[in-house]
Amino acid sequence: MTLRVDALCNARARDLAAAWLGERATPEALARIAWSVLVEPGDATAGALIAAEGAAGALERVSRDEGGGDKELAQAIARWAPRWQAALVVAAIEQAARRGLALVLPGDVAWPRGFDDLGPHAPVCLWVRGDPNMLAAAAAVSIVGARSATPYGEHVAGILAGDLAHDGIAVVSGAAYGIDGAAHRAALQLGGRTIAFVAGGVDRVYPAGHAQLFQQIASTGAVVAECPPGTTPTRWRFLARNRLIAAIGDATVVVEAGFRSGSINTAGHAASLGRALGAVPGPITSTTSAGCHRLLRDYDAVCVTSADDVKEMLGITADPAPLAYESPESVRLTDALSNRRARTVGELAQRSGLAPGDVEATLGLLHLSGSVVEREGGWMLAR
Amino acid sequence: MTLRVDALCNARARDLAAAWLGERATPEALARIAWSVLVEPGDATAGALIAAEGAAGALERVSRDEGGGDKELAQAIARWAPRWQAALVVAAIEQAARRGLALVLPGDVAWPRGFDDLGPHAPVCLWVRGDPNMLAAAAAVSIVGARSATPYGEHVAGILAGDLAHDGIAVVSGAAYGIDGAAHRAALQLGGRTIAFVAGGVDRVYPAGHAQLFQQIASTGAVVAECPPGTTPTRWRFLARNRLIAAIGDATVVVEAGFRSGSINTAGHAASLGRALGAVPGPITSTTSAGCHRLLRDYDAVCVTSADDVKEMLGITADPAPLAYESPESVRLTDALSNRRARTVGELAQRSGLAPGDVEATLGLLHLSGSVVEREGGWMLAR
Repeated sequence: MTLRVDALCNARARDLAAAWLGERATPEALARIAWSVLVEPGDATAGALIAAEGAAGALERVSRDEGGGDKELAQAIARWAPRWQAALVVAAIEQAARRGLALVLPGDVAWPRGFDDLGPHAPVCLWVRGDPNMLAAAAAVSIVGARSATPYGEHVAGILAGDLAHDGIAVVSGAAYGIDGAAHRAALQLGGRTIAFVAGGVDRVYPAGHAQLFQQIASTGAVVAECPPGTTPTRWRFLARNRLIAAIGDATVVVEAGFRSGSINTAGHAASLGRALGAVPGPITSTTSAGCHRLLRDYDAVCVTSADDVKEMLGITADPAPLAYESPESVRLTDALSNRRARTVGELAQRSGLAPGDVEATLGLLHLSGSVVEREGGWMLAR
Repeated sequence: MTLRVDALCNARARDLAAAWLGERATPEALARIAWSVLVEPGDATAGALIAAEGAAGALERVSRDEGGGDKELAQAIARWAPRWQAALVVAAIEQAARRGLALVLPGDVAWPRGFDDLGPHAPVCLWVRGDPNMLAAAAAVSIVGARSATPYGEHVAGILAGDLAHDGIAVVSGAAYGIDGAAHRAALQLGGRTIAFVAGGVDRVYPAGHAQLFQQIASTGAVVAECPPGTTPTRWRFLARNRLIAAIGDATVVVEAGFRSGSINTAGHAASLGRALGAVPGPITSTTSAGCHRLLRDYDAVCVTSADDVKEMLGITADPAPLAYESPESVRLTDALSNRRARTVGELAQRSGLAPGDVEATLGLLHLSGSVVEREGGWMLAR
């Protein structure tokens, strides 16, 4: 079984793409669109073949033979062939052009540099509703979590996302109810950048209750998918989508998550890609924090309590407030001093167990800091 | 200046100690009692000298000369000398005998093996109100935290301490208000072992509101101090006491703590002694959890959410419930199946992007687990 390319459809797709993309409608771009329609997200056989022969060459190869001696490729062709309909490619381009979507390809300025780490699992192209240049943000943090979030979780997601967005850091999430929505909304409210990666086509609003949020994100940020317009979100596509959220973020922070939440899957991708991983703790009596605690315990996630903690994960550090250091001598001498009556150096030495010379030296330091005062009968604590 | 030993007092101390301790009232035991009265907790010069010359030899040495050529020792003698009153040793023994305290010395069966790790900072002896054999528990966990705990913190401390005590693990804490008290009480309620390390003498009830709790701990567990009876608790002695709580515990768990809480000091001791360190997370909006989150982030503390987590830190592991593994093929095929109408292998291959052979193999596995049923027109999800 081979993939037979439909010449008529090809010509139609080429014309539509030229009208949509202009000079960018190269044979390579068209072939990537075709691969995006043909394969499920993260298909590593397709990814490796495209890396080796280019998208157009790879498509040509699988139209020509049945994998040659390559058993893996032959099996892949066997699973791709039943899905191949050139008309679907035409439909995707038509839809994208009508809705004014942008197409982002590897090598474009807007292509997220983090996607290179996905190797053969990288998406073949990205379909963008909104501003594709959002994807080239200098710094991006992915904030994800439970759909069934608590008010605590949504509050915290909003605080983190708002603070990060305020500092020019792009807030990436999955546009779901709960934590995702709270993160996008806070970034939007502060006029910051926000990017939503969705599991189906960018024209499919899921969940339906987020139609207005999708609109708002698209108007100042970007809604992005690797699947072409018209694609239904499936469980597999949600899981695959999570790797993109993990790969684009310089750090991924899980705000609230059940013990087996999909956010754990995103966190696992972030960790395996070497991204900084953070988790926000919560009460151990809350099941919606159990996944975060699991990440802290088993995935070596950083305990995140503020946007500053997240920025520190990105290597953006604020000057820490110096901790007041109190020497053991100072603690022992302060214990021995009274605020009611003055004590001599001898008395203080006896009570504190410090040598008289150390008592005198420490008294000098405490005097400088205004903690002790000298009276006729010796020394006492300042009021 | 040298420490002049008072022959009369010595004789009196010897007689009282013999009445109190019987054959255990050796010159070495008496000398350790004297050192306990003389030095502040954790005095490393005393510790090193005692390790080198024995307690009696060390006392003899500092009564005889002024440190010889040893500058550190000369300085130590200068700070010890003003405190030396043989009458205090007599008073401590009298008090201990009258209150029926036990004395535990290094080398005794009840001496906590963990104290060896304290080196020259180890206590010279322990004064125990209650059962000294408590100190030789096979496993001990120190549970500490804020005095100004929240209901959440006290609830969690109680759950952890109760579960651990129920499993025969000794619960160690500092008998303060808040987390400490909740931990001791839960252990007592379950008839388990509990040990309180206090900063002053074991006859001093601090805080005063815990008089009844001290009584209860002493009646089935142990209240322990390194300072002799009559000693006032000071801030220095609290800090020094914390190292004993950290050293005796196979693990230390901080339940709630402010950012600069004394519990952070205990945790620091536990970490530097190589003990397992755990922290219970809480809402990031709660200042009484800020110290715990600091431990999770900066001290590599284990995120503790249950007594099982603590037991795992001790190397006592329960069989984990196996996680249900779902292969990518299974996820994709389940996405493609309907629960309303049957689909052929060909249809399923097209929808899932799996090869027909993989569809068949995966259907077989799903059929075995009862997830799918075969109908005339093909396969569908089981209701």
